[in-house]
Amino acid sequence: MMLLNEVSKILYNNNNFVLLTHQSPDGDTLGSAYALCRALQMIGKNAKVLCSDIIPQKYDYIYNCVDDCEFEELFIVSVDVADTQLLGDKLSLYKDKIDLCIDHHGSNTNYAKKSFIDSEASATAEIIVDLIKEMNIKIDCKIAECIYTGLSTDTGCFKYANAKPKTYRIAADMIEIGARSSYINKLMFDTKTKERIELEKMVLNTLDFTCNDKCAYIYVTKEMLKNSGASDDDADGLAAIPRKVQGVRVGITIKEKDNNIFKVSLRTDGILSASEICKQFGGGGHSAAAGCVINGNLKSVKSKIFEAVCKEINNERNNSN
Amino acid sequence: MMLLNEVSKILYNNNNFVLLTHQSPDGDTLGSAYALCRALQMIGKNAKVLCSDIIPQKYDYIYNCVDDCEFEELFIVSVDVADTQLLGDKLSLYKDKIDLCIDHHGSNTNYAKKSFIDSEASATAEIIVDLIKEMNIKIDCKIAECIYTGLSTDTGCFKYANAKPKTYRIAADMIEIGARSSYINKLMFDTKTKERIELEKMVLNTLDFTCNDKCAYIYVTKEMLKNSGASDDDADGLAAIPRKVQGVRVGITIKEKDNNIFKVSLRTDGILSASEICKQFGGGGHSAAAGCVINGNLKSVKSKIFEAVCKEINNERNNSN
Repeated sequence: MMLLNEVSKILYNNNNFVLLTHQSPDGDTLGSAYALCRALQMIGKNAKVLCSDIIPQKYDYIYNCVDDCEFEELFIVSVDVADTQLLGDKLSLYKDKIDLCIDHHGSNTNYAKKSFIDSEASATAEIIVDLIKEMNIKIDCKIAECIYTGLSTDTGCFKYANAKPKTYRIAADMIEIGARSSYINKLMFDTKTKERIELEKMVLNTLDFTCNDKCAYIYVTKEMLKNSGASDDDADGLAAIPRKVQGVRVGITIKEKDNNIFKVSLRTDGILSASEICKQFGGGGHSAAAGCVINGNLKSVKSKIFEAVCKEINNERNNSN
Repeated sequence: MMLLNEVSKILYNNNNFVLLTHQSPDGDTLGSAYALCRALQMIGKNAKVLCSDIIPQKYDYIYNCVDDCEFEELFIVSVDVADTQLLGDKLSLYKDKIDLCIDHHGSNTNYAKKSFIDSEASATAEIIVDLIKEMNIKIDCKIAECIYTGLSTDTGCFKYANAKPKTYRIAADMIEIGARSSYINKLMFDTKTKERIELEKMVLNTLDFTCNDKCAYIYVTKEMLKNSGASDDDADGLAAIPRKVQGVRVGITIKEKDNNIFKVSLRTDGILSASEICKQFGGGGHSAAAGCVINGNLKSVKSKIFEAVCKEINNERNNSN
């Protein structure tokens, strides 16, 4: 395990940094990478951030916080990337050349020459803020907004169990430095496109229950996406809907990827293991959130996943007797 | 303006406290009153909390944190109650007898013999935690959960501008003491009854736009409430929906109260003043959230409020030219 001052030393001793983020970028990979990029530029280093996908416009206050520059790429750092597969197509050329990985995913596959991984951190941004302090670089309000975004988005706006006292205290510091917390949270959590709302209406109409109402499910077809005009980005976060129903322990979201190919997302109370259920179908994830891909038509996919979930619920009942 | 140590002295010098909460109780009035009640019981005082309405079951971890006791009522304290009208019918007998008021609403009408009002506090719970510290009473995990609930619910889970660095830091302290933050937030923000979801589906179908899509509106009829089986509690928070649509500056929610009587809730970006618009109809509130009652049929109510809102948007445009 590396120490943070070793990471600091490595960054001071190198130059011309390429910071890699994961595909389908979120607030943590972007906030963390751009905060570090700006910090490196503040001490006179060349640095840039890359992403396989186009960065959604709502993150403009993040990606505008650094200067564009051209330079020979010498030192490759991945930020918040658990596995090289997550770099996406455009960045796959870097996969065997990563000098340093900074991440908070316990599932990190240790693909880099050196890695600093802290799975206790609520977000990679929590590591980056410590690193910038360790490097004695001043956190200005732009860095503060990057860090705040990472913390807020990875904890569901401080709602989930991964938001620890330390997370709240860093958020407090970032607001004090000038992060516009309510502006950021409105953008991240309280803004929906018309198309997203159209899609939500369609999806809510599919909401149904099984396993004595302990399990709720919704599904999203390609036709719904087309008819609503919603993008893949608009479909993000739908998987949270079924678990919100009072009394529901397992929420299932079935999304049509292609003909007879469905992505299944599971959200549980964390006691029933989502990852154990998804493993049966070759998927994986965390205890409260996991996913897998199941082939077949909608009816057969539903019956396969229902059977696996209800079996798990019944097993638990039998074991507790 | 009273000082906190005067409030502390008054509480130490009295006994047999009745703590009054506001009608349609929320996490802040309940969390604050029960935290104070438990603190008073911890120093050997008699104290109880009253509310005009039945307290929803989701708050059971709050109302179960004090001991029930019978005593002669000697000292009346209102907590998070801006106006005696908000005490509701059952507590109206106390309205001229309130010895002390503790509140964070700037609009507090100063109805009590003595008042401690801090409109800078994000929630009344933020005042209560300082008071309990001032009184040298140990904050245990039950008080911590009451305080955390007040902070979290009054700031939309730390999402809104009223969540200040101090708010985050107190939340951090409360979690450290033992408040189950993710359990509380799941209950407060991520649990919906089936009836609520049914109602949301109906309401989303009414979503429409006016004033060049700067204004979105929804409506809720008594028939929808009946057909969905939703309670008034289930209808809470619907007013946040229309303002979430990208680009919308004013969200309008029109709710049928009785034949030809509609409650109109406005949510704005805070630049366009919701309270100024509602004042025109005898209502009021804050700059970003306000309400009023308008009589007439749905069509005429819609046209009245649309006219007022669009006039305000156009005025702003003209003034900025």
